[in-house]
Amino acid sequence: MVPDFENGVSLGEMAEADVLARIFPRLPESASTLLGPGDDAAVLAAPDGRFVVTTDMMVEGPDFRQEWSRPEDIGFKIGAVNLADVAAMGAAPTALVVALGAPPETDIDVLEGIADGLRLACEQLAPGCGVVGGDLSSAPALTLTVTAFGDLGGRAPLTRSGAQPGDVIAVAGQLGSAGMGLELLFATENADEVESIKGSSLVAAQLRPHPPIALGVSASTTGATAAMDVSDGLVLDASRMAKASGVSMVFDELGIARAAAAIAPEATNRGFSDEDIVEHVLYSGESHALLTTFPADQVLPLGFTPIGLVIKQSAEPVYFGNRSLPIRGWNPFIY
Amino acid sequence: MVPDFENGVSLGEMAEADVLARIFPRLPESASTLLGPGDDAAVLAAPDGRFVVTTDMMVEGPDFRQEWSRPEDIGFKIGAVNLADVAAMGAAPTALVVALGAPPETDIDVLEGIADGLRLACEQLAPGCGVVGGDLSSAPALTLTVTAFGDLGGRAPLTRSGAQPGDVIAVAGQLGSAGMGLELLFATENADEVESIKGSSLVAAQLRPHPPIALGVSASTTGATAAMDVSDGLVLDASRMAKASGVSMVFDELGIARAAAAIAPEATNRGFSDEDIVEHVLYSGESHALLTTFPADQVLPLGFTPIGLVIKQSAEPVYFGNRSLPIRGWNPFIY
Repeated sequence: MVPDFENGVSLGEMAEADVLARIFPRLPESASTLLGPGDDAAVLAAPDGRFVVTTDMMVEGPDFRQEWSRPEDIGFKIGAVNLADVAAMGAAPTALVVALGAPPETDIDVLEGIADGLRLACEQLAPGCGVVGGDLSSAPALTLTVTAFGDLGGRAPLTRSGAQPGDVIAVAGQLGSAGMGLELLFATENADEVESIKGSSLVAAQLRPHPPIALGVSASTTGATAAMDVSDGLVLDASRMAKASGVSMVFDELGIARAAAAIAPEATNRGFSDEDIVEHVLYSGESHALLTTFPADQVLPLGFTPIGLVIKQSAEPVYFGNRSLPIRGWNPFIY
Repeated sequence: MVPDFENGVSLGEMAEADVLARIFPRLPESASTLLGPGDDAAVLAAPDGRFVVTTDMMVEGPDFRQEWSRPEDIGFKIGAVNLADVAAMGAAPTALVVALGAPPETDIDVLEGIADGLRLACEQLAPGCGVVGGDLSSAPALTLTVTAFGDLGGRAPLTRSGAQPGDVIAVAGQLGSAGMGLELLFATENADEVESIKGSSLVAAQLRPHPPIALGVSASTTGATAAMDVSDGLVLDASRMAKASGVSMVFDELGIARAAAAIAPEATNRGFSDEDIVEHVLYSGESHALLTTFPADQVLPLGFTPIGLVIKQSAEPVYFGNRSLPIRGWNPFIY
């Protein structure tokens, strides 16, 4: 059924059905599919009568560069970041839909690589989750919108607003490494230099993040009071959680030192000072770590590290020991 | 809470939170929302343990032009076309999520207009349906991805594959007018000419389509055997239904004449010949009419017009009387 196109053929030279025929076999299947591709819409199971939904658009230029990311990396990353948003609600990811815009001169290989990356992300991070539908469009830059679904298994969703004074703040996943990886990529001057640093775990954290997807459900089943995906930096995201919960968050020296120690060997190796490392742990974006709060008497589930305490709402939303921390932000239209 | 920005300010001059604060109050609320915006994901009700999902990307240039479409039209249209895909499954639309990419110099008024259009589309076409989440990105061209959800109310989904020999083919909504409207827009040479034809129902069908959303559920509850949204032209879409169902479709002269008569007064007025009109009814895209099949003994529900009969699979998928009809297509990467 799949036409025998050579590699290197562009989307503009193929019929839509032939493009789809090349992509579909590479996409992961969802165990929740009741009616899959081929109709105007798909039908998915929502066994507990609710579903979690999140959507994210990534555009070539502001969000990724093909000089840095292979198509497989691009597919993996947009899959992973959407799965992370589902996990942060305490839900198990069930399915994705994918809308892709591309210039007509785009090689079909690029779409195949993106499909492979989506498959790997689902297989490695959320087995059973798969792609149930999508759309292809012509666009001036490669553009991907993934919408992800999750199942809460009868539990209440974890929100940003549930943190209570006295709770422990705990994170799962790595803080800071993706931001350091981005800094390393910005410092490269040619394709050879990019290739030479791709072995670094910091660069891998930027190009192909592995958020702790399964730990979203772990947090939920072990009594976490709040959770969120750390996408814009620990301090900014913690300040959002603090405001939503009506509390303040205090990071302790030991907790932040522990988070820094997790990435220090490679970071030091790549020329980052101890001060740089702590700065990245606190502020750099795209870590996709899972920020949670747990009652103080709860033994933290495997994979979580305590980094501080929730206190009653004080003058500032976030403190580091007894110093307040400046809140610095991220704006999608200023980069 | 909403900062006092002047109109005319661009996205690049505003913080993301301020952009969202301007958009959110304009968006329609969904009656199915269990947990709305403010967390990493939303939670929606899926009362029958399943949900219908479809996604669609529209990009400035190939899919719409700001010289023709006001922001409100753009929002209305992407809402309407996604609702039409949900309706074609026999489902009632419940909610949308919206990812929007825009150049940083885009005026905030444009996003507000798009939000207004989405609200009007939901209010007019699918009351109770609303926007439950979204994402903002920077992009080289205005880009909208809407993902829409629907509820089947315990019924089996309508698919393309259920048409049976002996069934009546029936359509709801208008065939051909949106394509004629597009032809009129292409023939304009300046903004004044565009304004002068906006009063035409043909142009309105192109810029702000009103698909018969509620009739998807009507079709399902009155025993339709198959349904699909006519987005790529009646003949091409009917050929897809014919192939999926393993049947052939025969349009009759009277049925097509009836569909043509529905748009003939305005079309004739705008210079289309009788032959042009039939050509548009058969082939032109974006009509978002609802193509259905019903058992022959079923009284068609209000709003449906018979246009032909399903027969056993023959040499061609689609006939007009006893002549076969050439299948002509649409490719998103060739336009």
